[in-house]
Amino acid sequence: MSGRDERFAMGVDFGATGVKLARVGADGGIAARGGFATADVVGVEGWLDAVEREAGRLLAEAPSGAGCAGIGVGVPGFVDYANGFVHDLANVTGWTAVPLAESLGERLKMPVKVDNDVNVMAAGECAFGAGSAFQHAVFLTLGTGVGGGLLLNGQLYRGAFSMGGEIGHMSIDMNGVVSAMGRGGVEQYVGNRQIVERTLRELETGRASSILERAGGRPEAVTPKVISEAAAEGDELALEIFDFVADCLATVMASVAYLLQPQAFIIGGGVAGAGAVLFEPLRRHVDERLNRHFAERLEILPAKLGNDAGVIGAASLVLKG
Amino acid sequence: MSGRDERFAMGVDFGATGVKLARVGADGGIAARGGFATADVVGVEGWLDAVEREAGRLLAEAPSGAGCAGIGVGVPGFVDYANGFVHDLANVTGWTAVPLAESLGERLKMPVKVDNDVNVMAAGECAFGAGSAFQHAVFLTLGTGVGGGLLLNGQLYRGAFSMGGEIGHMSIDMNGVVSAMGRGGVEQYVGNRQIVERTLRELETGRASSILERAGGRPEAVTPKVISEAAAEGDELALEIFDFVADCLATVMASVAYLLQPQAFIIGGGVAGAGAVLFEPLRRHVDERLNRHFAERLEILPAKLGNDAGVIGAASLVLKG
Repeated sequence: MSGRDERFAMGVDFGATGVKLARVGADGGIAARGGFATADVVGVEGWLDAVEREAGRLLAEAPSGAGCAGIGVGVPGFVDYANGFVHDLANVTGWTAVPLAESLGERLKMPVKVDNDVNVMAAGECAFGAGSAFQHAVFLTLGTGVGGGLLLNGQLYRGAFSMGGEIGHMSIDMNGVVSAMGRGGVEQYVGNRQIVERTLRELETGRASSILERAGGRPEAVTPKVISEAAAEGDELALEIFDFVADCLATVMASVAYLLQPQAFIIGGGVAGAGAVLFEPLRRHVDERLNRHFAERLEILPAKLGNDAGVIGAASLVLKG
Repeated sequence: MSGRDERFAMGVDFGATGVKLARVGADGGIAARGGFATADVVGVEGWLDAVEREAGRLLAEAPSGAGCAGIGVGVPGFVDYANGFVHDLANVTGWTAVPLAESLGERLKMPVKVDNDVNVMAAGECAFGAGSAFQHAVFLTLGTGVGGGLLLNGQLYRGAFSMGGEIGHMSIDMNGVVSAMGRGGVEQYVGNRQIVERTLRELETGRASSILERAGGRPEAVTPKVISEAAAEGDELALEIFDFVADCLATVMASVAYLLQPQAFIIGGGVAGAGAVLFEPLRRHVDERLNRHFAERLEILPAKLGNDAGVIGAASLVLKG
């Protein structure tokens, strides 16, 4: 192997419940892993201590002669990418106005890049996953909310103040559900909780379905995964729920396609794990909602990196600039 | 003046009813004008003959020593910008699959750039108008339909296949008005015809309003301009119509802001001429529909170049690359 191939980077995936680290090669492969539970550390300093320790261990274990390009961090919240500054995290207390790149850089003595988790996923898919064939692609993550990342002219586009890509707040109904983000935002219809609530409302009307049985008879155990498994085996209500989710997503995807005309949408996150029961109606509804000239030139693909998207994507911020 | 200041370009604004030409200086100023009626020429060859004649005259009248950088053309339809190729024009027959840049370049022996009319307007506003202070801005034209142009990172962004920017087809209601472009596209609610039809429907219910009187009692003479004049003088129905138009536009603008986070929206075209009766409710509704962090960082401005946006913008394609 040449010296160039032995470059690697550290990737940090900061989740609300756990922090994952990995040593990632220049080819996007994971060479070693580390991590800790978010609840095991106290405050920003405790978090920095734990990351320094884990990163130090992974660095010490790296083959001699291999060079570390730096460390990338994906965080669940608002980030000023240019300055590696965390404005605020959605579900982690104590993380307001944190100069993360600066603090971590001082400790580790290496370049640090920080971005939000969806951009990090998009960066990873562009560098090493489903997005690597495209110059223009839009990434969606489906989970608690709907996140977006934009690849335009081969680069992540973050908007004028690093806050763009908020596809989940794009409206599909000007008179729709009110939230702190406006009216009719698509994630008010297709977020995990909203999918489950919609299903439970239907079950309460007495509709025949295998969903509740699959959840052991406990409404609180109904999840998008349980519903998607029922749909995969032909459960009518479950198929109807996924058709609705797909049509809501198709509405916003058609709008994004008219605006940006990407080559592809690349879809990841928990709900995307549903597979064909999501992707089949999604393709159909997008084609219904788009003019042929746009529909013909648009691919809709699942993300490839799965649970490793976070660490690989974070490392790619450094590996690919 | 230095030689550099004496560079100029020819701008051609190809409208469905008339073709305007201008000799435009490096500062965006118009030095001389020409033009002809679209109905006076037959087919593509007739159009090229007329443009060659008018451009030749404007060139011959240019001061000796001044250098022509080339000719830019804005056309009302789908264009492959990279190749200066016209796919199709919406309201002009005979213009399908025309290699316009090539044909015009052979005749005039100078560089030719071709783009659609909305991108041309956006290019002009960026170079010499309301957009010149921004790196990230979204341009809207309000008229028969709603057109869009995107300035991202200081450059016009046209999408993967030159067809992006179609803000008019972005949906504001997933169950809304059906058209060839999908469901609920905003221009199905705020296009010139739709504004007038909405107004006439309300008048037919017997509502008190000065609108019909302003149109000489003739429903067919009601235009967005007549309605905006009534609104400016406090006519309740007219104000209600403009509030609705503003809210529809605000819905799509909030969605675009969440996706791209531009610094500004710049709004031109006939309906934008309504002034405060449009811009006041527009700002209010955008603020209602956007999170504070986005609303605070967003300007909404009228376009500056008015009726000259077409020729100045077309020339700017050449002057500014």
